[in-house]
Amino acid sequence: MEMKLDIKGIAASPGLAVAQVYVYHSNEYIPAESRIEQPELEVKRLQTAINEVKQELEIIRASTEERLGADKAEIFEGHLMIAEDPDLIDGIIEKIKEDSVNAEFALYEVSKSFIEVLSQMDNEYLRERVADVRDVCNQIMNRLRGVEQQGLSTLTGEYIVISEDLSPSDTAKLNLESVKGFVTEIGGRTSHSAIMARSLGIPAIVGAGKDLRQIKSGEWAILDATEGTLLVNPSPDELANFTEKKSSYDQRQAELAQWVNRRTISADDHHVELAANIGKLEDVQKALDNGAEAIGLFRTEFLYMGRSTLPSEEEQFNSYKYVLEKMQNKPVVIRTLDIGGDKELPYLDLPKESNPFLGQRALRLCLERPDIFRTQLRALLRASRYGNLKIMFPMIAVLSELREAKQLLSEERSKLEAEGVELAEYIEVGMMIEVPAAAISADLFAKEVDFFSIGTNDLIQYTMAADRMNETVSYLYQPCHPSILRLIRMVIEAARKEGKWVGMCGEMAGDETAIPFLLGLGLHEFSMSAGSILRARELIGSLSKKEWDVHTDQAMTLASQDEIQAFVRNHQQGGAIL
Amino acid sequence: MEMKLDIKGIAASPGLAVAQVYVYHSNEYIPAESRIEQPELEVKRLQTAINEVKQELEIIRASTEERLGADKAEIFEGHLMIAEDPDLIDGIIEKIKEDSVNAEFALYEVSKSFIEVLSQMDNEYLRERVADVRDVCNQIMNRLRGVEQQGLSTLTGEYIVISEDLSPSDTAKLNLESVKGFVTEIGGRTSHSAIMARSLGIPAIVGAGKDLRQIKSGEWAILDATEGTLLVNPSPDELANFTEKKSSYDQRQAELAQWVNRRTISADDHHVELAANIGKLEDVQKALDNGAEAIGLFRTEFLYMGRSTLPSEEEQFNSYKYVLEKMQNKPVVIRTLDIGGDKELPYLDLPKESNPFLGQRALRLCLERPDIFRTQLRALLRASRYGNLKIMFPMIAVLSELREAKQLLSEERSKLEAEGVELAEYIEVGMMIEVPAAAISADLFAKEVDFFSIGTNDLIQYTMAADRMNETVSYLYQPCHPSILRLIRMVIEAARKEGKWVGMCGEMAGDETAIPFLLGLGLHEFSMSAGSILRARELIGSLSKKEWDVHTDQAMTLASQDEIQAFVRNHQQGGAIL
Repeated sequence: MEMKLDIKGIAASPGLAVAQVYVYHSNEYIPAESRIEQPELEVKRLQTAINEVKQELEIIRASTEERLGADKAEIFEGHLMIAEDPDLIDGIIEKIKEDSVNAEFALYEVSKSFIEVLSQMDNEYLRERVADVRDVCNQIMNRLRGVEQQGLSTLTGEYIVISEDLSPSDTAKLNLESVKGFVTEIGGRTSHSAIMARSLGIPAIVGAGKDLRQIKSGEWAILDATEGTLLVNPSPDELANFTEKKSSYDQRQAELAQWVNRRTISADDHHVELAANIGKLEDVQKALDNGAEAIGLFRTEFLYMGRSTLPSEEEQFNSYKYVLEKMQNKPVVIRTLDIGGDKELPYLDLPKESNPFLGQRALRLCLERPDIFRTQLRALLRASRYGNLKIMFPMIAVLSELREAKQLLSEERSKLEAEGVELAEYIEVGMMIEVPAAAISADLFAKEVDFFSIGTNDLIQYTMAADRMNETVSYLYQPCHPSILRLIRMVIEAARKEGKWVGMCGEMAGDETAIPFLLGLGLHEFSMSAGSILRARELIGSLSKKEWDVHTDQAMTLASQDEIQAFVRNHQQGGAIL
Repeated sequence: MEMKLDIKGIAASPGLAVAQVYVYHSNEYIPAESRIEQPELEVKRLQTAINEVKQELEIIRASTEERLGADKAEIFEGHLMIAEDPDLIDGIIEKIKEDSVNAEFALYEVSKSFIEVLSQMDNEYLRERVADVRDVCNQIMNRLRGVEQQGLSTLTGEYIVISEDLSPSDTAKLNLESVKGFVTEIGGRTSHSAIMARSLGIPAIVGAGKDLRQIKSGEWAILDATEGTLLVNPSPDELANFTEKKSSYDQRQAELAQWVNRRTISADDHHVELAANIGKLEDVQKALDNGAEAIGLFRTEFLYMGRSTLPSEEEQFNSYKYVLEKMQNKPVVIRTLDIGGDKELPYLDLPKESNPFLGQRALRLCLERPDIFRTQLRALLRASRYGNLKIMFPMIAVLSELREAKQLLSEERSKLEAEGVELAEYIEVGMMIEVPAAAISADLFAKEVDFFSIGTNDLIQYTMAADRMNETVSYLYQPCHPSILRLIRMVIEAARKEGKWVGMCGEMAGDETAIPFLLGLGLHEFSMSAGSILRARELIGSLSKKEWDVHTDQAMTLASQDEIQAFVRNHQQGGAIL
């Protein structure tokens, strides 16, 4: 009998979906070694498995070509070539025969050293094949084992993916044609899988707990990521209710669509800028589709991740140029590399830290490794003439860091000018406010930057001394705590005195309870996931800036996030009714 | 030829020493297994090693009895019994014979399972023998290997200990008769080994780097922990210079001794309280010897560490009572358990955290584990009538945490009163200010506590988002950064408005560059390592509070720690000359 399960998690990216479940295990399978009496039978098993994988790859290739075009299908041609690669396949066969071992073990051992060799190649193209080799070998392994594990990139059919967690690269690989949503055991609203889901625009629930382990691939489920629930094996009644809910949800989406091409103005005609946070080139189109007036945060670290070497200046230049051109002179704030913390780059081989969030991350690392930093700065400078670029430095705590970063930027500008490269005449330079020290001394920084962008995710975690990925202290993640609101006010006031603008690119900027408050505090730019922009625009259109100036002053006298949120909700409803 | 080495590190605890070096490796040695032709010879080797260890233990026992009394010598009687324990010794012999393996391997394997069995015992006494068994087996192992590794507790002779690092328990075990100072490869001024060294009053250098690995046990060295240098194999001239330096150092110490029984008042007769931070019962005497007017911080976690179960209410009660009585009605601020972060309690089996400093530490854990917390609160309440107790909660970020802690305290008070236990009528309750959120909203807290104590070590690490144990970001550990000084000012002003007092129990309170400033800001109590009190008293006696009120206002307009420190130094020298 199918077991009904009603699972509750954190609604990380809104949306509704009904589909079969696909349980994804990201851990590598390590087979045991066993002695084999008749190695030739084992070779047969291997060849059958490879042939099955090849057939499947051919089907996927053809369907992808038909649906998405020849360029998208190319990757599967590459996979087919790997499944036929004599170095690899003959190596495995030889190992089976010589050592009289099982096919799984031979595949594991040979593919491992094959990947090692590739990783050390001095040829970038070959090095980049490592992920493909791993993917194909994984498929062969699954065939040998008789398990139906597929890579997330090659899923066909429609699924809700269930997993313990999804790494940024897992998430990046999701085939959006197939994956209608996902649910993870661990994580919070600001974990990377959550952020990625919002940026991809697919429904997702995170932190759903160990109950997920009871779900099997193939079971049907209703994912309601507006409320954070997953209903496994729903009844016909529940399915009917869901269909109704989905249709009113779709209707609401259509209403919101009206706001795409409007300016963002409050009910009393105060303009603020609604911008999008992006992490990949594909996100730009989504930002535009959702009516973003700017890119408020381009997270460049995704250029550096999921690969085995640093991206070249040319690659970076092309990416930055692409975004700037696509945004057609709308502002694009590009943040320099923010690696460290929870984001690792294995190929940099950085020392393990006891508290990586308090370690050598972001600009701290860039100042220690000017070789990496200068390459990025050059690429940014060269791209500057293709649009409205603003450069932003993350994780600054003290003035000397800002000055050093600006010095490197100015050196690279001089070099490029001497080389005769054409650059934008003036590029705004700003900094993230995410370290409490920077917020508290924002007046000192305001004299030396063109803008601030408040990164609330980190600012809250440091101000509360509570890891935002750690569930045991998640009660301390309080965006509307008096201390956070005071810091935000300090930053905005410090900037105002110097005539500089202030944006916000943390989760809080898109939070409907916080927006009225932020309007009252005088925030200039709200940067959020593309999917939140239209609702924010509609909301701001219903608010009176003048009224919220007063409300905000009142709310700032309250003593806890609970009181402040209740206050905002009361006045918001009042405002909406009037 | 002996190699001269001049090593520079961080001066962590002042003092001068000349002695032979003792290189201490805290890592466990794991022997390889080898087949043995004649097991009976191997058994002989083992027995010889054991006999040597027993002889040595007997010598140590006798000398300890003579020097420190019979009670201190008891531990070595216990060690002797272990070296004769038939379960252990026969087990090893049997393993050598049956498996034909080397004595080292047999010792390693048998002692491991012996320790495992002990650890699981339902008898507290036996469980606590684990450390002793490990120590004795280690000594036998060293004899077998022919290396002269001794435990730090049983060192005889005079040594400067060199080690990669010393854990709190390593440091606690130091035999102060023998250890004239220590030098570690890693660590900073606020690492635990540094704090322990100051509290033990022995010279120490930390963060001296890998050069230490070139030093061999037995080489002579001059440790100058006033400057942070270690000179290995010094020349006769250098030794002569050192002797001269030491004699003027001793003279200075004698000068300082005059300040022991004076009140702490500024040149213009403003009184502040100079208190001591303590971590062990022995530290109380040292605090009194150095003229402490109070205990500003009693770190109770040392009651919980270096053992295998939680301390009982009775044990805790006795410790608190001891300190309170010994301080004879002088204020004693006892901080409730601050575990987590870099301080682990293996027997609690807490989950590993990715960023322990941002995790479930201190009060956060206590609120999650009220069983542990209530026991401590009861012990504190019961001890309250033996002196001037003030209870302090660490790591509070939001009001609800403070309220919950106070609620538990009041519940335990009611229970004890109902049981007829006599308690102090009023006990001051305060909190650490170490989370930026608490500093920024100190006005909200000031209404609900009797006092604040600013924990600058953590406050700086969170405000700067820089792990204070991580050397790559140590440049951000800036006590005099404008943001830190502004937070301190906010806290003192918030308390003043409510008529509450403010102390400081971080390293900064004893820092001679910071003291004038803190006086100007209006800090009421300065709590520091006992060894720093007399110098601080002398310094404060030379400062005019009125002048520093003005200087402080001026310095608060500066933009960096460098400028602020230079400002303080200029005015301090000026003040001293006038």
